[in-house]
Formats: sequence, C-alpha cells, structure tokens
Amino acid sequence: MKPDKILLDHGSGGKISHSLTADLLLPAFDNPALAMLDDGADLNLVGGRIAFSTDTYVVDPIFFPGGGIGDLAINGTVNDVAMCGARPLYLSVGMIIEEGFPMADLEKVIRQMGQAAKAADVTVVTGDTKVVPKGAADKIYINTAGIGVIPERIHVSGGNARPGDAVILSGTMADHGMTILTQREGLAFESGVQSDSAPLNHMVADILETGCDVHVLRDPTRGGVGTTLNEIALASRVGIRIHEDRLPIRPEVAGICDLLGFDPLYVANEGKLLAFVPVDQAETVLAVIKKSPYGREARIIGETVEDRPGRVFMKTRIGGERIVDMLTGEQLPRIC
Amino acid sequence: MKPDKILLDHGSGGKISHSLTADLLLPAFDNPALAMLDDGADLNLVGGRIAFSTDTYVVDPIFFPGGGIGDLAINGTVNDVAMCGARPLYLSVGMIIEEGFPMADLEKVIRQMGQAAKAADVTVVTGDTKVVPKGAADKIYINTAGIGVIPERIHVSGGNARPGDAVILSGTMADHGMTILTQREGLAFESGVQSDSAPLNHMVADILETGCDVHVLRDPTRGGVGTTLNEIALASRVGIRIHEDRLPIRPEVAGICDLLGFDPLYVANEGKLLAFVPVDQAETVLAVIKKSPYGREARIIGETVEDRPGRVFMKTRIGGERIVDMLTGEQLPRIC
Repeated sequence: MKPDKILLDHGSGGKISHSLTADLLLPAFDNPALAMLDDGADLNLVGGRIAFSTDTYVVDPIFFPGGGIGDLAINGTVNDVAMCGARPLYLSVGMIIEEGFPMADLEKVIRQMGQAAKAADVTVVTGDTKVVPKGAADKIYINTAGIGVIPERIHVSGGNARPGDAVILSGTMADHGMTILTQREGLAFESGVQSDSAPLNHMVADILETGCDVHVLRDPTRGGVGTTLNEIALASRVGIRIHEDRLPIRPEVAGICDLLGFDPLYVANEGKLLAFVPVDQAETVLAVIKKSPYGREARIIGETVEDRPGRVFMKTRIGGERIVDMLTGEQLPRIC
Repeated sequence: MKPDKILLDHGSGGKISHSLTADLLLPAFDNPALAMLDDGADLNLVGGRIAFSTDTYVVDPIFFPGGGIGDLAINGTVNDVAMCGARPLYLSVGMIIEEGFPMADLEKVIRQMGQAAKAADVTVVTGDTKVVPKGAADKIYINTAGIGVIPERIHVSGGNARPGDAVILSGTMADHGMTILTQREGLAFESGVQSDSAPLNHMVADILETGCDVHVLRDPTRGGVGTTLNEIALASRVGIRIHEDRLPIRPEVAGICDLLGFDPLYVANEGKLLAFVPVDQAETVLAVIKKSPYGREARIIGETVEDRPGRVFMKTRIGGERIVDMLTGEQLPRIC
C-alpha cells in the first residue's frame, strides 16, 4: 500500500525512493533527460554564453492565494535566469522534505512545479530528494537551479545602469509579501490579495526583442523594490530618483501595509521586474511590458542621475525628498 | 560589531545579508562571475553537450573525520557531473541556515567549500542564502548544482552497460557511512575510520583519456554499491555478478559493520566510483584508476552477464551465490 505520509525511507536512495521518483516526479516533469535517471542530465546547448542561477525556497505557509512553494520555486529561478538577459531552458530541483509530510501535499507541490515549468516553457532535467527526521525541517524546502542561453549582443547587469536611464517597474509592489503575511498571521482579510508569483521570461524576451539598449533587469524579491534599487545604485555607481506618486500599488495592499506598518518599498515581489533603459527608449519598452499579462500596471517610476552615486532617493507626494536606504533588519522571515 | 551567530536578518536580502556575502562568500569563492552579484552568473561555455546535476546535503554531524558538509557538498556534485562523462566547470551553492548557527561554524563550512572547489578545479559562480527560524532546520543544509562539458565522443550512462563488461570499483566500501554513524552514536572507536569524501573528476578525465570504451560511470553514494549496481542492472537490462572475495573494504570498517549489523554493500561512499568497461579494456582502465590518489585500492569486482537481466548477484566467499537486492528500508538518515 502506498504510504500517505513521507517516510525517512523515501530519502534512502533505495526502493521506496525510486518509487517516489517513478510515480510522482517523472510524470510531472516528463522529459527524456530526466527519465534517464543518471547522476546528471546530458543536454545539448548551442555554444556561447549561458546564465546560471540558484535559489532556495522556504516560504511559510507552503500554499497561499495566488500560488505555492512549487510554482514559486520554478518562477523564482526562471526569473533570476531571465534577469541575466537569458532564455531559461533547464532547471534542477532539490527537495528537503520533513518526515511525516503528507503525501497529498507533496503531490500538490509537484503538480504546481510541473504546471509552472510548462507555463514558463522550461524543463526540469535533474533532481534530488532528501528526507530529514521530523523536526529537522518545516514541511518542505525546495532548491532550484537554472540554466539559460544569453543572446550574443545582450549585456544586462545590475552594474550597467547609466545616468539618463529611465527606471521601469513592471507592476504593483508588495503583493507577494503581504499575501504571505496575512496568511501567516491568520488575518481574516477578505481582501482578495494574492501573490504575484509569475514567470517573467517571456516578458524579458519581448523586451530584448525590441532591440532597445536594456542596461539592467532585476526582479525585486526579498528586500523589495527599495533594496533592489540600492543594489543597482551601488553596483552601477549612479544615483536613482523615484517618484512616490508613480509607484504602483493595489489599494488593498497599500491598506494592509498601512495597517500593519510595512513600507511596500521593502516588501517582496515574485512576479515583477525593474528595467533600466535610456530615457528615449523607455516608452517603447514600457509598451511591450504592458502587453504582457504580468505587466499591465507597469510604470516609469523614476530615473538615474549623476548626482549622489550609490544612493536612492524619492520625491515624496508632498514635494519633499527622502533617502530610500537598503532594508535593515528582517521584515519577514520565510517570505520566499 | 560582527554578530557571532547567524540572525534571521542574515537572510533578509538587506544590508546584513550583503555583508555576509561580501565578507565570507566572495573571498572564499573568489571569481569575477560571482563578484558581479547579479541574479545569476554570465558564463562562457564552448557549445555542445553539457551535464547538469544537483544534490542537497543534510549530513549530521556537519563535521566529521575526513571532511564536513562543506567539502561533501562540493565533491558530491562535482562527482555527479563527472559521472556523466563531463568535465565539471561551474557550481551553484544554496544554503539554508538555522537562526543561531555559530558564525565560526559557518566560516569553517565556507572555508571547506572554497578549498574543495579549488581542489576539484571548479568555480562557484552563483548562490543563495536563506535563514530559517530556530527549530525550522538543523544547523545548515546545502544544495549545490553543477554544470560540466561532455566531450563529443563520450556517451556514459547507467543504461549503457552491456554483457561482457567488467565492473571496476575504485576503492574501499562504506568508509563515509560508517564514519558518520560512529560519530553520531558517539561510539568511542579509536579506529581512525574516516570519510572518503573526495573529488573524482580528475580520475574520470584520466579514465576517458585512455580512449577505452567506457559504458557506465556511477558513484555509489546513498544506498551504497549494492543499490547502485541494481540501478545499473535495471537501466541496462543486464545481469551483474560480483565476487565477495574481491570487494575492497578496510578491516576496521568491516569490523564496525559486523559489530553494528550493517552490510557494507549498502553503506554510502563519497569518493568512489563504479566503472563498466569491456573486459578486454578493464586492466587499462584499472591501471589508470590506481594511479589516482583516490583509487589505490581499486579492483575489478565483477562482470555483467546476459543471464538474469535486471538482477545483481554475488558469488560468496564460501562458493555459494546470493541475490543482492536494492536497499529496502532506511539504513541511515542524513548520511549525506
């Protein structure tokens, strides 16, 4: 009889490990490279430049409005690879599962991963499953690593912003972080707030397709838009000025942030990107982003300046100016 | 003042996360791709076939005679990539750290990773650090993923064994697993048993350099030699016969196995490989393996047969024969 919970034995490398792989993983990620069950995948890649990225997902709770740890783990790494200007192709999945984790939940997580991989048009080609004794992890943690191909002429990096760039944000801030928080705290908001977990690789491909001179692409996850802009300002040695009245945020998310005392600039997003392009090309790129199902609320939120290199500052609604520093202190553990 | 323990804040993506990266990780893995601190690494790869593999390391204890979780995490993935017939080039590192983990231990783990990467001649080009609240993990878990290049003429797979292959084991069995067990149980053996954690990529390169027709390379980690041979027998639809009197094992390891009731055939190794090559080329390959510092005890332990495809059986010391099944039941959780 099939056990309804994960046993230590599922991580032994023996018979029951193999049945887990054969019954759950191979069908979800159906592809010949994975089906070989070798120590690694044997893949054909057109030569040249590749992007390689990894992220581990420890989000709590594991299921939430708008997604779950499964699609988050796929989308997050797809996006990190895409932010290098690459077309993501292949992913690895490494799971740590707590003994006693319900099999039905594992099936749901794996189903989410399979569907997300399909939606993003990437293939899970290799993986690993470890089971740790009860209490040595909390339910399930997932690492993904991803490989993509970078077209020859593309040079996108957090260090490439230049004075005179427009800063585009592809949509509303703080949806993911505030969704997790309200779920975790058991707050009975009937607000319809949901995570923005989404794959951005097709949006990135469309942006690059314009031929515009894209300097930076970055997804503002942990630490939010505020921290990510600081990273870019430091790496590129430019000043970044944003405008409070242009920052897109859903009213219900703004309301929750207000109520709970969070600054949406520092709250995690999981389906948004920041793009830096020369001001005269910004409208072209913005138009392309707005055509994506994940970019309808995109806005030009600011610009780079020569002034104050390494700093981010904001023109406030009332006409003042304040420094936007990097996040200090942990806002929300296990947000992704 | 630098904190002497890991704080939740170290995983926030904010200021203190950045200082962890800058102070500990960049120096240990010193290379330009990582130093860019982009969402992923931008790498140049000669086109063609690549191998891609991942593994997560949850070993307990994290330090043990012969190594630690740091070098294990590097060597394990280096070896998985090498077992595809590839030259490993680039690794990712994703860490989950428990809040309160001593900074000195983290420094030691990272130092082990840096040294192991150097010894294996691979570069850690991208990474991620998550911190979970106390009790949501046990000390530290590390995922690594690796990329390597497979030379054009090489086709190595667990499914490529053919009748008439010799089965070579590159050294003694069960060293890693028995080391972990004796450490964990606090057994006061003054036996000098130690983990065999080692990078096998240079040995693999030397094997492939012979031009011999290598069918299978596989490292017998979780589940041991017995389980790995079963996987190969199933994937290749061949029978595999091994000879008990040829199985290399250190007397002290055999003694501990006897005492504690473990069959060394099912105990994990972390620096050994199984190679399947046509019988008439076996001595050439064996000679090359024996020249490696990690292959001195290599032996031809058996051969493939047309008989009983999918099964592994052993000629016993007293002249009988027994089936060697796949491991059933968990022998040792958190062995790697």
